[in-house]
Amino acid sequence: MTTIDLTTLGQNAQTASFALSDLTAPQKNTVLQRMADALLTHQDTILAANAHDLANPQVPAKFVDRLRLTPERIHAMATGLRQVAALPDPIGNVDHAWRNAAGLLIAKQRVPLGVIGMIFEARPNVTVDASALCFKTGNAVILRGGKEALQSNLALVTILRDALTAAQVDSNAIQLLQDTSHETAAKFMQLTDYIDVLIPRGSARLIQAVLRQATVPVIETGAGNCHVYVDADAELQMATAIVVNGKVQRPAVCNATEKLLIHQAVAADFLPTIVHALRAQGVEVRGDAATQAIVPDVIPATPDDWGTEYNALIIAIKVVPSETAAIQHINHYNTQHSEAIVTNNYRAGKLFQRRVNAACVYINASTRFTDGFEFGFGAEIGISTQKLHARGPMGLAELTSYKYVIDGDGQVRA
Amino acid sequence: MTTIDLTTLGQNAQTASFALSDLTAPQKNTVLQRMADALLTHQDTILAANAHDLANPQVPAKFVDRLRLTPERIHAMATGLRQVAALPDPIGNVDHAWRNAAGLLIAKQRVPLGVIGMIFEARPNVTVDASALCFKTGNAVILRGGKEALQSNLALVTILRDALTAAQVDSNAIQLLQDTSHETAAKFMQLTDYIDVLIPRGSARLIQAVLRQATVPVIETGAGNCHVYVDADAELQMATAIVVNGKVQRPAVCNATEKLLIHQAVAADFLPTIVHALRAQGVEVRGDAATQAIVPDVIPATPDDWGTEYNALIIAIKVVPSETAAIQHINHYNTQHSEAIVTNNYRAGKLFQRRVNAACVYINASTRFTDGFEFGFGAEIGISTQKLHARGPMGLAELTSYKYVIDGDGQVRA
Repeated sequence: MTTIDLTTLGQNAQTASFALSDLTAPQKNTVLQRMADALLTHQDTILAANAHDLANPQVPAKFVDRLRLTPERIHAMATGLRQVAALPDPIGNVDHAWRNAAGLLIAKQRVPLGVIGMIFEARPNVTVDASALCFKTGNAVILRGGKEALQSNLALVTILRDALTAAQVDSNAIQLLQDTSHETAAKFMQLTDYIDVLIPRGSARLIQAVLRQATVPVIETGAGNCHVYVDADAELQMATAIVVNGKVQRPAVCNATEKLLIHQAVAADFLPTIVHALRAQGVEVRGDAATQAIVPDVIPATPDDWGTEYNALIIAIKVVPSETAAIQHINHYNTQHSEAIVTNNYRAGKLFQRRVNAACVYINASTRFTDGFEFGFGAEIGISTQKLHARGPMGLAELTSYKYVIDGDGQVRA
Repeated sequence: MTTIDLTTLGQNAQTASFALSDLTAPQKNTVLQRMADALLTHQDTILAANAHDLANPQVPAKFVDRLRLTPERIHAMATGLRQVAALPDPIGNVDHAWRNAAGLLIAKQRVPLGVIGMIFEARPNVTVDASALCFKTGNAVILRGGKEALQSNLALVTILRDALTAAQVDSNAIQLLQDTSHETAAKFMQLTDYIDVLIPRGSARLIQAVLRQATVPVIETGAGNCHVYVDADAELQMATAIVVNGKVQRPAVCNATEKLLIHQAVAADFLPTIVHALRAQGVEVRGDAATQAIVPDVIPATPDDWGTEYNALIIAIKVVPSETAAIQHINHYNTQHSEAIVTNNYRAGKLFQRRVNAACVYINASTRFTDGFEFGFGAEIGISTQKLHARGPMGLAELTSYKYVIDGDGQVRA
């Protein structure tokens, strides 16, 4: 691959995307299997390129773990490709079809989105993951990964493109933006003639930067300031299990529980137990005045706490006078990701599900289930926190659009 | 209504949108009927406000017809409200539900988008139309109409809001942006904290301005550079009917046929007939060199013709060597709206439907059928020409999003 200008990159992707719509599912699956084989065959090349990236003294220490590739991680990438190959292909399926008043047969048929721009940080696994999901759904992809991973990404993309070429598929179905400057990234986000959608994946800062600069439609992903509300009618043992699981099972991810709201009727009973249980797992507990009144040694929460996604072993607790107050607090501070109520009251549970503005609203379950694999999608390109197009975990179906294919026999409009 | 700042407008809309999600379909339908009654009751107020707008000497002459209201047009608005009331309400419906491996019951349920920003030109009927469709789907709407229609829009929105208040519904479900300056419009398009989606409706210039300035997600609508391709295996009589209907039945609208591509094998047979038929309807016919060779007196087409949406009684004709050339031409110049092939060849028809990149792809029918009413949706807020979220005619379903409501009994993630 040589460095090419953005317009050429876009044109190449669009041309490739048209050809992809002709591939059958077995053809695509064969290519995905060959890609998996090729990653294993060329493991040494990938590791050498990765070592080159890691040797760069400018790579921040916190990036090193996510950037580092090992034989195990390359094996996991290959397994991921084979898993995507095994999933059903949504392209060409008809959601529904009907005959209109004029006698036309109108079918709403799943088609690729076209060209997807993926913008992500220094995680080489996203390069393979996103390429697989986009290719399976007949989309051409342009990858713009973090500059720290450039050599790793180049090695991976070269291997994936070679597998496309070997299968006589246009290798421009997968392209890497090699110029990782901010100026070029900004132009990339405005390539409306060629890119159908941008999917940023990474930190809140990255996503906000894309939203600010892009003119291409964006699917916003990832930020999760998730709450558990323990209702007056909650089973407190269940509530403890759900809060602890949500907070500690994997604190760095977007579906981790960040805030705990407790109905005042059960606060005195529940607070000592849950604070003890959380602290036993190493969680730093912050609380509002009412929480401090019951558990005096919690760290006082500040107004900033309610809107913060910690991604760490920290939780902030607030005592609320009613379910309505809990819902209002959540709808004010949340990121529309995942929210849970613990209750045995039917009306309270259903009200919470109806009024809370979020992609996933749970009764009596951990927020940690918001995940394409847990949902049974078999894959995940990200978790949408916007309402347009896709909301919540995005699998293969969410990487498709539709067209109406209409069969007539000479109809004209009266 | 008094003029309020944008943030307050946004907050009001969001607060109203949360309350709307509690309304049942019968409650919403009753309000829509009351709105219809109120428009008729207050007809004189509306006409007086409209006369005020029309008296403004700065209103461009071409805007006068679309701006003018009459008793008949007010009656049509009221009828439109009643038609929306009669449609099924998509909100709360479950697309599908399943039990996952952990035993959670996950239901994908239709919910409102939230707050919709409508940006449109001096057409007061859009004020009523958009308000009805947004309210029916539980969305709060902020209307930003053309400045030429401000008094008409104020009168209409006041009547609609009074009907909301009378039914004890938060009147901020429908708000009008009264400051019609470009500066305020630009800020309005960036109100990401409160507006979930922007739908511009109007000229290509308006839509491009919104796409350029907005940071709120936009649904692009309207532009239609639509083609009919007459294949080597076309029934030429059918082709004539389809081309003439597409071009002349209503030339100013986005689904009108703008371009005619003819396979060279039938060009000599078909061209004299179709040019004659089009001219008989007052159509100006332009053609490429091959067309000129067969019908010498057509106006020579210039390169600019192929990308132009005329919205007028003009057509440009090109003779193509193959179906593949036709598809390539269409995918290069079209606006992804509506495209048609006339053919009796099964393979040619299906190839065209698969490869042409457009919202609606017809075999043997007029492009004029791309319309929410013709599709059987019973209503239409616009025709999307993008691939994200909605494509083609947008009815009530396209004004919804979804959430996952998940019922558990204490599940935590292993």
